[in-house]
Amino acid sequence: MFNKFMQEALNEAEKSLHLSEVPVGAVVVKDGIIIGRGHNLKETSNDGTMHAEIIAIKNACRNLNNWRLSDCDLFVTLEPCPMCAGAIIETRIRRVYIGAENANSGAAGTVYDILGKRSLNSTSDIYFGIMEEECKNLLKNFFEKLR
Amino acid sequence: MFNKFMQEALNEAEKSLHLSEVPVGAVVVKDGIIIGRGHNLKETSNDGTMHAEIIAIKNACRNLNNWRLSDCDLFVTLEPCPMCAGAIIETRIRRVYIGAENANSGAAGTVYDILGKRSLNSTSDIYFGIMEEECKNLLKNFFEKLR
Repeated sequence: MFNKFMQEALNEAEKSLHLSEVPVGAVVVKDGIIIGRGHNLKETSNDGTMHAEIIAIKNACRNLNNWRLSDCDLFVTLEPCPMCAGAIIETRIRRVYIGAENANSGAAGTVYDILGKRSLNSTSDIYFGIMEEECKNLLKNFFEKLR
Repeated sequence: MFNKFMQEALNEAEKSLHLSEVPVGAVVVKDGIIIGRGHNLKETSNDGTMHAEIIAIKNACRNLNNWRLSDCDLFVTLEPCPMCAGAIIETRIRRVYIGAENANSGAAGTVYDILGKRSLNSTSDIYFGIMEEECKNLLKNFFEKLR
């Protein structure tokens, strides 16, 4: 079940890869159905907010016509940065399933502790290591080709 | 000069007020010219990412056709939350001028230390207290009326 949705997030990440973007993908799931999808489009869109998670979250809000995603879970191939962690808090996403750790700017505890720090609005549970190898390898191959 | 641009941010916040949104406004300035504007539209849009800063930053990226806002300054009536602080880092905004402190979720040091924590990508200078009374009063009046 977890792997099925992380595979969908990986499929999203592949779309970024084909655009020569850093391959990161995310899906938002409610009652076992994907209600939001996103892949990193920062370079293509020339918009620094266009990370996979932000796009998937905006997509989910639009589909539900609600900014509260408290019954929703997010699957993302890479640990969210502070911006995306903040968006997860703002929309009250219930659970966050993460593929690879983000040693540069991970905000679920690796560099910043935003998701972990339970403020009034934040109630997300965090699960690391979902299809970690696949998520890591996708990024590793991308950065190796870049060099 | 600082007050002129904070007044523009306050004008944006007034637009949120007229929509019964929490009144927060922001402008992005480059070479003395406003290139991005935003006011909080979270409830109206039913999108939890639609904070004033995110909207102003997306607007600036679109106008410059560039996700790098490294020559740009942000004026915002309320200290940014983690999501907006993360967007400031992602887009490399040079200076951030803040009106009121955000005791609930301020990420420029008040609750979270995201802008203050200088990671590799973060080089924003932070200035608190620009037209602080005006920015505080706008929020205070809003929340008092709500009760």
